[in-house]
Amino acid sequence: MSAERLARAYLLRVAEPPAPALVAFVAEHGPVEAATLVRLGHAPDAVIQETSARRELDLAQRDLDEAARNGARLVTPEDDEWPAWPLLSLDVATGRGAQGVAAPLALWVRGRGRLDEAAQDAVAIVGARAATDYGEHTAADLGYALAEQGVPVFSGAAYGIDGAAHRGALTGHGVTVAVLGCALDAGYPAGHVGLLNRIAERGAVVSEYPPGTPPARHRFLVRNRLIAALTAGTVVVEAGRRSGARNTASTAGVLGKVVMAVPGPVGSAMSAGCHELIRDAHATLVASVSDVLDTVGRLGADRPDGTARPRRRTDGLGPQAIRVHEALGERRGKSPEGIATESGVPLARVRALLPALELDGLSERCETGWRRAGDGRKAARP
Amino acid sequence: MSAERLARAYLLRVAEPPAPALVAFVAEHGPVEAATLVRLGHAPDAVIQETSARRELDLAQRDLDEAARNGARLVTPEDDEWPAWPLLSLDVATGRGAQGVAAPLALWVRGRGRLDEAAQDAVAIVGARAATDYGEHTAADLGYALAEQGVPVFSGAAYGIDGAAHRGALTGHGVTVAVLGCALDAGYPAGHVGLLNRIAERGAVVSEYPPGTPPARHRFLVRNRLIAALTAGTVVVEAGRRSGARNTASTAGVLGKVVMAVPGPVGSAMSAGCHELIRDAHATLVASVSDVLDTVGRLGADRPDGTARPRRRTDGLGPQAIRVHEALGERRGKSPEGIATESGVPLARVRALLPALELDGLSERCETGWRRAGDGRKAARP
Repeated sequence: MSAERLARAYLLRVAEPPAPALVAFVAEHGPVEAATLVRLGHAPDAVIQETSARRELDLAQRDLDEAARNGARLVTPEDDEWPAWPLLSLDVATGRGAQGVAAPLALWVRGRGRLDEAAQDAVAIVGARAATDYGEHTAADLGYALAEQGVPVFSGAAYGIDGAAHRGALTGHGVTVAVLGCALDAGYPAGHVGLLNRIAERGAVVSEYPPGTPPARHRFLVRNRLIAALTAGTVVVEAGRRSGARNTASTAGVLGKVVMAVPGPVGSAMSAGCHELIRDAHATLVASVSDVLDTVGRLGADRPDGTARPRRRTDGLGPQAIRVHEALGERRGKSPEGIATESGVPLARVRALLPALELDGLSERCETGWRRAGDGRKAARP
Repeated sequence: MSAERLARAYLLRVAEPPAPALVAFVAEHGPVEAATLVRLGHAPDAVIQETSARRELDLAQRDLDEAARNGARLVTPEDDEWPAWPLLSLDVATGRGAQGVAAPLALWVRGRGRLDEAAQDAVAIVGARAATDYGEHTAADLGYALAEQGVPVFSGAAYGIDGAAHRGALTGHGVTVAVLGCALDAGYPAGHVGLLNRIAERGAVVSEYPPGTPPARHRFLVRNRLIAALTAGTVVVEAGRRSGARNTASTAGVLGKVVMAVPGPVGSAMSAGCHELIRDAHATLVASVSDVLDTVGRLGADRPDGTARPRRRTDGLGPQAIRVHEALGERRGKSPEGIATESGVPLARVRALLPALELDGLSERCETGWRRAGDGRKAARP
C-alpha cells in the first residue's frame, strides 16, 4: 500500500466534495504532505474550513480494506488507470473561476473495466427519473446503439432514463459506467442493485464517496460534474424544466463538453426541459445515434475512425498545461523540476500534468526525462 | 377600370411566375408601358423568353370580369391594399442574387380581409400533407392560439398541417389567409372547397395565377415564396426529409424571415424534417405559441405590444429603398421625379417604393409631394 494511496483515501473522507481549496493544496504539496498538514491543522483557512469537521477521522486503511473486500479499488492520479485527460477539464474550468467543479482527489471504482479506457470518447446519457415510456425507450435505444459502435455509455444509475441507458448499453454488449452520488456499498437505488452488479461485470461503478456514505440530493448534483467531465458529451433524453439532468448538461457546457438533447412531443412535460436546452441553451438536437456521433465528432472528440479531430492537439489545454507543454524540449528530455522552473508552474502541478499530456500523445518519457511527443511536436507550432 | 389594373392582369397571364426579368421590366417602365412593349415583342431577350409563349393571349378584361363574378379582385402595387412592405423582402433577396424569389406582379384575392392588414405581423404555419394526428393536433392548437392573440395565420390550404392550421385559426375567430398554387377557381384541393369558403369569409384566399390555372408541383414551390414573404416567420409543424414545407422554410430564411420548427418524437418520419431544420439549418425550436411569439418578436417583428422593434426602422430596406429614403426631404415634400433624379432610382421604382415606405411610417405625403415621416426622421440618422 503506497503512502499516496493511503493519503488520498484519508483526504477523500476528510472533505465533502467538491473541495476546491483542498484540491489546490494537494496539487501544491502532493497528497502525502497535504494529508499530514491537514491532519495537523497546518493549512490555509480555506482548507481548514473544508476539512475541520472530519480531519481527525483517519479511516483510510479501513476504507481501503473494506473496498477490497467488496471487490472495489481506489483509483488515484498516481495510477495508470486515472482518467487524467478527461478530468483535466475540471481543473481548467476551476482555473477559469467556475464554481463547484473542483477535480476529485481520487475515485472508488468497482468493476472489470479500466476507468481511463472507459472514459475515452465516452458519451453520457442522462434524464428524468419520472421518465415516460417514450423517454425510456429512446434512452435504451441510444445506449444500445452507442454500445454497438464501441462507445462507452456513462450515466447515474437512477431510475428512469439513467437505468434505461445502462440497460441498453449492456444489451448492446458494450461498456457502461455508473457514477454514484453515494458510496459504492450504499445499495442505492435499491431496485438497481442487480443492475449495478451487471454494470460492474463489464464496465465500472464509480464514486468519490467513502464506504458507508448515504445518498443525498446535493451529492447527486456534485456527482453530475464527474459524469460531464468523464465524457466527450452529454445527451439529455428527458428532463423537466428544473432537473438534475439539466444540471449535468449545464455543467457539461461549463466544462466545454458537447451538450445534446433529444426532442419529444411538445405536450410532454418530460420533454420541456430538453426543448428549453435546445432553444435557449443551444444544446444540439439529436434524434438518432448518428446525430450523437456526428455531434461529438464534429466538435472535436477523437472518434475511433479519426474523421474529426480538434484543429490542434493543444486546443483543449488549460493555461498551466499549455505552459508545461511549451516548456518541454523537442528532443532532449527535461526533468519535472527543470520544467517547473521554466514554466513557472508549481512542481506538483507539473508532475500531475505531464502524465495527462502523455495520455493525449503530447508528451513522452525518455531517458533524460520528459519531451514533446508525436503529433504534439508539430501541432504545437502555430 | 384603370389602365394599370388591366396591364397587370394581362402580365399575370403572360408569364409563369416567378418572372424576374419581367418584374424588373415592369419596375423600369411601369405596368402600362411594359405591357404594351411585351405585347409588341419590344423587350429585352430575357423578358421575351419569359413572355413569348403567351404574349398574344390578352384575356385581361375577361379575367377581371370572371374574378368579379366569383367575388375576387385583383390587388396591385397601385392599390392601398397591396402588402408592399412584406413583399419588399422578395425584391431585396432578388437584388442580392437569390433565385426564384421575384416579387409578384399582382395578386388575385378573394375574401373579406384586407391583404395588407392580414400580412402585418402574420405567422405562417406549414407542414406535411401526410401529417400524423400529433402534427395536425399541434398545428390546430398553434393556429387557434395565434388567432386568439390577434396574429393572422397564413398557410397553403393543403391537406394535413395546412388545413389544420387554417381550421385552428378559424376556431379561434382569427384572420387566416390561404395562398394557393393554382387559380382561385380551380376548386383545389377538392376536399377543402368548403374550408376555402370559410377562410374567405374572414380572411383571404390569394393566388398569382389567373382564372383556370390548374395546380402543379412547381406552382406549389413558387407559391411558397409568397407565404414566406407575407409573414414575419414560418413555423414548420411536421415535415419529411424532403418536403415542400422545408422549401418554404428555406425560402423564409433567404428572405430574412424567422424560421421555426416544432419538434416531435424521434421515431416519427414526419418530424425528421423538423429536427433537421433545427439541428442543421438553425431553425428555432418552438414548442408553444409563446415560443412562436417570443421568436418572432425577438427577431424584430413589430408586435402590437411593441416589445421588440428593429434597431432602426430602415434596417430591413433594400438598397434602392434606402436611396429613395435618403433622397426624401425632412420638411418640404419632393416630387417623385425629383426624388428619382436625386436618388438615381428609376421613376417607376420610386413610385412603387414611396407607398411602401409610407406603410412602414418612413415617408408621408404632403402638399408639395413626399417627405420623411415619424420615426423615420430620427431613425434614419445614424
